[in-house]
Amino acid sequence: MSILDFWFEFASTYSYPAAMRIGNAVKGTGVNVRWRPFLLGPIFKAQGWDNSPFNIFSAKGRYMWRDIERECKAYGIPFRKPDPFPQPSLLAARVAACGTSEPWGEDFVRAVYRAEFADGRQIGEPDVLTAILEELGVDAASILTRAQSDANKAMLRGATAEALERGIFGAPTFITEDGEMFWGNDRLEQAIAWAKGGSGGIRT
Amino acid sequence: MSILDFWFEFASTYSYPAAMRIGNAVKGTGVNVRWRPFLLGPIFKAQGWDNSPFNIFSAKGRYMWRDIERECKAYGIPFRKPDPFPQPSLLAARVAACGTSEPWGEDFVRAVYRAEFADGRQIGEPDVLTAILEELGVDAASILTRAQSDANKAMLRGATAEALERGIFGAPTFITEDGEMFWGNDRLEQAIAWAKGGSGGIRT
Repeated sequence: MSILDFWFEFASTYSYPAAMRIGNAVKGTGVNVRWRPFLLGPIFKAQGWDNSPFNIFSAKGRYMWRDIERECKAYGIPFRKPDPFPQPSLLAARVAACGTSEPWGEDFVRAVYRAEFADGRQIGEPDVLTAILEELGVDAASILTRAQSDANKAMLRGATAEALERGIFGAPTFITEDGEMFWGNDRLEQAIAWAKGGSGGIRT
Repeated sequence: MSILDFWFEFASTYSYPAAMRIGNAVKGTGVNVRWRPFLLGPIFKAQGWDNSPFNIFSAKGRYMWRDIERECKAYGIPFRKPDPFPQPSLLAARVAACGTSEPWGEDFVRAVYRAEFADGRQIGEPDVLTAILEELGVDAASILTRAQSDANKAMLRGATAEALERGIFGAPTFITEDGEMFWGNDRLEQAIAWAKGGSGGIRT
């Protein structure tokens, strides 16, 4: 059983199709996904940006909205542009950070992405996250308290520091156990092939 | 017969595999490629950059060198990192601009990319371009003179202004006759499918 780290950020557009696809994509491959929520804010700040690069670089941003619409359509994944963009993702990331080893963790991540990129909901609002957790049948109030504990905040900060130290500069990013990095939803299949070992014609 | 514009820049890393692949990729599709050399410098300047983003944003640059090595290996295309990077591409772009409607034009583009990204040659040096043109059996001296004429310089400036106006922000970029834009070597197949019309599950 090989492990593939999946680094994602809720405000990241291309993390959405990656999060919706990765579960099915690894089925039967022997590759186990480790879901790694982190924050792009500090990483963008290290590159001199105080906003999404898609907002700072408007031509690239215009293209991205068209591209992700086409990509989601090709995957059969519903898509609606979040308004505003980016959505405040801190609280959702904290909940995800304390849910990664819980049975509801992956479903929560997918539900947040669906709320944000398919249903036009405001994922920065605690009420929206509460509703999502309740739909998953877990104790929303106690999870939100735990998510905002100092220990959990520190865990998320630590994950973000680890991402920066590993050379992550955007999301989604996939990293194999032997340290091979793949950036972007487009590279999901290659990352899985690499994690499986010696396949896909891409191991050098 | 549908036309697909292929916008490329000699200093662009991912334009290299795209240039080497596009000829075979369109074979039998009924899609005709229009080779569009342009300069990324003015376009990067409009985004506030005075160097390649892969040099400005070092983590992204480190990843890119690894990724393009993997990609080229998967395609069976030789790869060697140019030194220095980026290579001065102005003169080669001028030659390409005056060669786009000549029988040697496409071969020249591929030969320059091969010289730069496979053979470690300095494509900014007139002698290197002269040797490439001579290998193609054309009159190198007269072509280099024509490439540096005011009319040809103006043509390349015009192409770059057109790229900026069309919203191009990087290379390679593919644009179909109906104005659909695809950015990056990864999107070559989708661009061709779109140009063919109604295929690939991506026409919306």
